[in-house]
Amino acid sequence: MDTLNTLMSHRSIRKYMSKPIGNELLNEILEAGCRASTTGNMQVYSIVVTTSDQGKAALAPAHFNQPSITGAPVVLTFCADFNRFNKWCLARNAEPGYNNFLSFFTAAIDALLVAQNVCVASEAKGLGICYFGTTTYNAGKIIETLKLPKGVVPVTTVTIGYPDEKPPLTDRLPLNAVVHYEAYEDYSATDIDRIYREKESMELYQSFVKENNKETLAQVFTDVRYKKADNEHFSKILVDVLKAQGFGFGLD
Amino acid sequence: MDTLNTLMSHRSIRKYMSKPIGNELLNEILEAGCRASTTGNMQVYSIVVTTSDQGKAALAPAHFNQPSITGAPVVLTFCADFNRFNKWCLARNAEPGYNNFLSFFTAAIDALLVAQNVCVASEAKGLGICYFGTTTYNAGKIIETLKLPKGVVPVTTVTIGYPDEKPPLTDRLPLNAVVHYEAYEDYSATDIDRIYREKESMELYQSFVKENNKETLAQVFTDVRYKKADNEHFSKILVDVLKAQGFGFGLD
Repeated sequence: MDTLNTLMSHRSIRKYMSKPIGNELLNEILEAGCRASTTGNMQVYSIVVTTSDQGKAALAPAHFNQPSITGAPVVLTFCADFNRFNKWCLARNAEPGYNNFLSFFTAAIDALLVAQNVCVASEAKGLGICYFGTTTYNAGKIIETLKLPKGVVPVTTVTIGYPDEKPPLTDRLPLNAVVHYEAYEDYSATDIDRIYREKESMELYQSFVKENNKETLAQVFTDVRYKKADNEHFSKILVDVLKAQGFGFGLD
Repeated sequence: MDTLNTLMSHRSIRKYMSKPIGNELLNEILEAGCRASTTGNMQVYSIVVTTSDQGKAALAPAHFNQPSITGAPVVLTFCADFNRFNKWCLARNAEPGYNNFLSFFTAAIDALLVAQNVCVASEAKGLGICYFGTTTYNAGKIIETLKLPKGVVPVTTVTIGYPDEKPPLTDRLPLNAVVHYEAYEDYSATDIDRIYREKESMELYQSFVKENNKETLAQVFTDVRYKKADNEHFSKILVDVLKAQGFGFGLD
């Protein structure tokens, strides 16, 4: 498929046919993923492929048992990974210095660029994909389930399979709402009204507000979907996970 | 161009023709970028477009004056951005709770998926791209130059332009070196030898070792390119930048 069409047709797919993804196709997609840019060509990432029913069931709780984890033929966990690189350094009389936050973030960038390439390649091949933000909430559980050693942290999860639904494209803010020229022009109250007007007027979101007994759509986010207490709870856990996996913050 | 071909043909382009990128084309690319998955459809990212000579010159020092920053027609700085979303919440009687590390990382993921989509779209249109890892080293300087408010942190930079070079594809580790099935299988000394053998035998890398007066290629990374002292220095700065921009770690 034409690349721009592939990108413009993206929708998250949460319902899949039971048809498995052949090994050859999966390898082609993963190869395309690994052509993504990588810092200094270090490739400081790993991909864990889960296709067994048992493996998917073991991962599901970390993703709050969302049914598409067990319902997808393939679950991919993308990890920031300095373990392999560190082992190489140590085997070659070189002293690695990557046990810090900057190195973790470098590896996370590597992993995320690969993940997006894998998604684009999958969609070009007629497959559907969905990202799971739950990965950073429950990174510790995933580390345990996938036996990730020190130096490895899961940063995102993607399910892949043949689509068994075709949801409409989701809305996006107007392009000029997210793009700035030469310098960041901060948003006035009028800008905010203009940017969010269309979203707020959509029937879909108006029903979210009603169903949740809220006054505004923003309250659905702050009070229901992405709550301060949850963010702070999982933030603390994520910081601890990074430290436990060997990426210190230099703060203590 | 066929999507898989686009992905498989990626190489970083550092030398560009002076030909500018038309606004229509740039917008098409940015629109395709913004179709990428985004957490809860919050779109917690911003893109700063720099095309002026003055703007590029101002950004260059943050990227250690690599010549492709001033030599590219377009420089894009991709930012994790909760500022816009927070302003919307506050204007809608909702209390945002996104001043924490988890929320920063969520926004960074959003920004990075958009960045990779923008790169793929650019390459499909015959343009070349290059990522700059220097963004996280000198995020503070970029914040100052682009006037990024609290809640906004640059996470990566991409130059785009018509290629004026065609470097060979860079090498990658064998796919089975970065992919694990069902669980992470840690690397033995033999695995490490096998995985890195081809890379270490390449003339390109053997000359790196010689030029830098090192014993091994790994030492070129640890002693020259990505040194422990630099990583620790810039790691501390990045942590401070995140705190200054309003994303706390809950550690102090």
